[in-house]
Amino acid sequence: MSEAATAGTSRTYDVIVVGAGPVGENVADRTSAAGLSPVIVESRLIGGECSYWACEPSKALLRPVLARPDARRVPGLGDAVAGPLDVAAVLAHRDDMAFHWDDGDQVEWLESVSVDLLRGHGRLAGPKDVSVTTSEGDIVLLTARHAVALCTGSAPALPEALGLATTRHWTSREATSADHVPGRLVVVGGGVVAVEMATAWQALGGQVTMLVRGDGLLPRMEPFAGALVADGLRDAGVDVRFGVTVTGVKREHGDDSEVTVTLDDGGHLVADEILFATGRIPRTTDIGLESVGLAPGDWLTVDDSCRVTAVLGGWLYAVGDVNRRALLTHQGKYQARIAGAAIGARANGEPVQAHRWSPHAATADGTAVPQVVFTDPEVASVGLTTHEVEQSGRRIGVVDYDLARVSGAHQYAHGYRGMARMLVDADRGTVAGVTFAGPGVGELLRSATIAVVSEVPLDRLWHAVPAFPTISEVWLRLLESHRG
Amino acid sequence: MSEAATAGTSRTYDVIVVGAGPVGENVADRTSAAGLSPVIVESRLIGGECSYWACEPSKALLRPVLARPDARRVPGLGDAVAGPLDVAAVLAHRDDMAFHWDDGDQVEWLESVSVDLLRGHGRLAGPKDVSVTTSEGDIVLLTARHAVALCTGSAPALPEALGLATTRHWTSREATSADHVPGRLVVVGGGVVAVEMATAWQALGGQVTMLVRGDGLLPRMEPFAGALVADGLRDAGVDVRFGVTVTGVKREHGDDSEVTVTLDDGGHLVADEILFATGRIPRTTDIGLESVGLAPGDWLTVDDSCRVTAVLGGWLYAVGDVNRRALLTHQGKYQARIAGAAIGARANGEPVQAHRWSPHAATADGTAVPQVVFTDPEVASVGLTTHEVEQSGRRIGVVDYDLARVSGAHQYAHGYRGMARMLVDADRGTVAGVTFAGPGVGELLRSATIAVVSEVPLDRLWHAVPAFPTISEVWLRLLESHRG
Repeated sequence: MSEAATAGTSRTYDVIVVGAGPVGENVADRTSAAGLSPVIVESRLIGGECSYWACEPSKALLRPVLARPDARRVPGLGDAVAGPLDVAAVLAHRDDMAFHWDDGDQVEWLESVSVDLLRGHGRLAGPKDVSVTTSEGDIVLLTARHAVALCTGSAPALPEALGLATTRHWTSREATSADHVPGRLVVVGGGVVAVEMATAWQALGGQVTMLVRGDGLLPRMEPFAGALVADGLRDAGVDVRFGVTVTGVKREHGDDSEVTVTLDDGGHLVADEILFATGRIPRTTDIGLESVGLAPGDWLTVDDSCRVTAVLGGWLYAVGDVNRRALLTHQGKYQARIAGAAIGARANGEPVQAHRWSPHAATADGTAVPQVVFTDPEVASVGLTTHEVEQSGRRIGVVDYDLARVSGAHQYAHGYRGMARMLVDADRGTVAGVTFAGPGVGELLRSATIAVVSEVPLDRLWHAVPAFPTISEVWLRLLESHRG
Repeated sequence: MSEAATAGTSRTYDVIVVGAGPVGENVADRTSAAGLSPVIVESRLIGGECSYWACEPSKALLRPVLARPDARRVPGLGDAVAGPLDVAAVLAHRDDMAFHWDDGDQVEWLESVSVDLLRGHGRLAGPKDVSVTTSEGDIVLLTARHAVALCTGSAPALPEALGLATTRHWTSREATSADHVPGRLVVVGGGVVAVEMATAWQALGGQVTMLVRGDGLLPRMEPFAGALVADGLRDAGVDVRFGVTVTGVKREHGDDSEVTVTLDDGGHLVADEILFATGRIPRTTDIGLESVGLAPGDWLTVDDSCRVTAVLGGWLYAVGDVNRRALLTHQGKYQARIAGAAIGARANGEPVQAHRWSPHAATADGTAVPQVVFTDPEVASVGLTTHEVEQSGRRIGVVDYDLARVSGAHQYAHGYRGMARMLVDADRGTVAGVTFAGPGVGELLRSATIAVVSEVPLDRLWHAVPAFPTISEVWLRLLESHRG
């Protein structure tokens, strides 16, 4: 490393950020705003998974897909929505929303916030050093005065036994960026990526089969959410199969031929594409972790300011997916705001506050991670789930309410189906978690996030009046049900 | 009165509620839940304006009307929404949502919560006495052991000079219950009823002209909201005219003939229907106010527990529109929950808490009244507006953000137009008011209501992460803009 660096150039910055997804961009932005000089290192597109192969393109596919059944459930409008989706228009829109996989705007933005960009593969090369192999093959050694932030994110986890390296398959990247609709699509997995992509491609004209190892969808959320989503997928024509494991994947006649999927129940399937949505692994295999005594391929454990706890000196941060606290773009960006502030404070000799909810502690990671699943019905959740409560041993009250009984929901859609659950911290009299499942609940989640984060007592929440007739009236019903 | 009562029957209850709209129903329900015996008096349909001539039917008309342009703005779906609305289906749906103007379900509900019902016209007949003229013409004298609650609501205010008593016209009741689409509709006024009904009937096939005395719509809200709604109405084909006053209304050849509307600018209009949406007056002209020293026709001033302040003894409550605190169904129901609790506590000899946000003080009336205007774009607001702040002399920071710059909005609709404003209490570091104007913001209002009511500090709100990509990300942008 050092030879290469000597052979090339070397530069010193206050902060080195490795990985220019939304998380890395935010760390760089915040440290720049704190008066520090940051450089960001990226070997691929500036903007990361979210912009090109995750949030943006997936939601661009899903908005038309969900707006159609939403409109069809509106009396007097449903029959007017007679035509199918214009698939070419949806895909063109998706291309727009993914910026045509061109990061020019993002590069401009980095310039506008005074962040230097170095395109290349960054690897730690000892304390505060990062060696970058540029796209031209040169080596640049970067040295940080204050901090290095690893924001390399995560990658799809693939079942090793299947030998997928030699068989063409989809991960979330291909599923969000595909330029045509597969005739037959097998989706392996039952988590968020799996249900969203099954929803999208089925509605766009594919015939989707979901192969789920467990006995329900969305296993990390409240069980009723997964059940409602399974109903919705089946209503849309998806073949959802539980308790089944893929034992083999083969394309007999090369990449362009159909794929044969063998199952542990002895059956098999033939399809055009197969998507593996089977979890994530950290992107830490080739970023020089060994140079600072960490194991390549590991998740990076951090404190609440996102400092890697196993490295001495407090100069190494790991922000976003790579620290495994919450694998969601918006939560990673939150961590970036917090970590950026902490890096700035430490560099400027200001006190760093470690207490809960301080500007330097990503407290919400443990208590208030919001997530919206864009399926029909939508699922929106924040805070604890019943399952987590059971494991924690806390005293929690569970309050359920059928969304179909809420006037605003009834107004929203004919035959509305949905469910809300509020978890109440019995000792503190506050909201510990909320899950909504139903059409049109996505924007309602924000109310639950604020309730959980603010730790507002239920007695005060009683004074927060829901506008009639909106779906948000369910809040009143939940509070009434809790009072009994 | 007393003769009539002697001639008829008399009964004693703990609580007498006059008016069985949603507000009266909730007062009765809550006092019943507190162990008291309530009776409710109503001369018309149980369920009130909201169920039959306001919220429910208007939103049933508006949901299809707004869902159509919403769907048309979605790439790949817009062209599929080729057909017009099925007007007959919309009106039939409206009839369903207005319960076909049948209150059987509501009567059953009253029974289920142990509330007696007396159908007839109730009038105060001295302290704690209510004389009821039943539909059969009998007189029943009711006496309250503890409290009488006047929940008679409000009625449309009509310009007196126009002699409308003899000229057929629409108020909100006819506008929400009409069984056919008027070819030409004149809407007089620029408030919520005016903009919502103009939106509905224009989209259902009418040609609507709005005559607005002032220079903008929604004058009680942030000016940008009214401006965006005016743009939307004009885009939809409504003729919106400002600074114009109606000086005459005539149907030359009787009720079925067309209506000629003369204007103060010397012009005139010919139409099929004319809707007066020109404010509200209290329904207090014929409820016996004079028997307790109050003036018939007045609004009733109350304290935070909704007790009429001008009447001694503390037995008379006025809840909902009639007290003029906030003329909205949901806010009246909130008052009913508070007043019902206060009546129960006082009757049961329990302490009544007068402090802010107590279970017996309708504090939100003065600080956090939420309202959603169902137009294209939607408007949703809670708490203070800039105009109110200017009058109050409080130190408030105003933060604006263009909703079109939010990814979630961009995902929601092609060419999204909208705006958000957050007012920050500079001394306390809390949110004092929020207004959103844009498609799909209705359910997002709940987040602002909870933020205002909980008085959560902005520093804590910084930890409330918006799910990406939802419109709610505007919260992050507002907070960032505030930090500068």
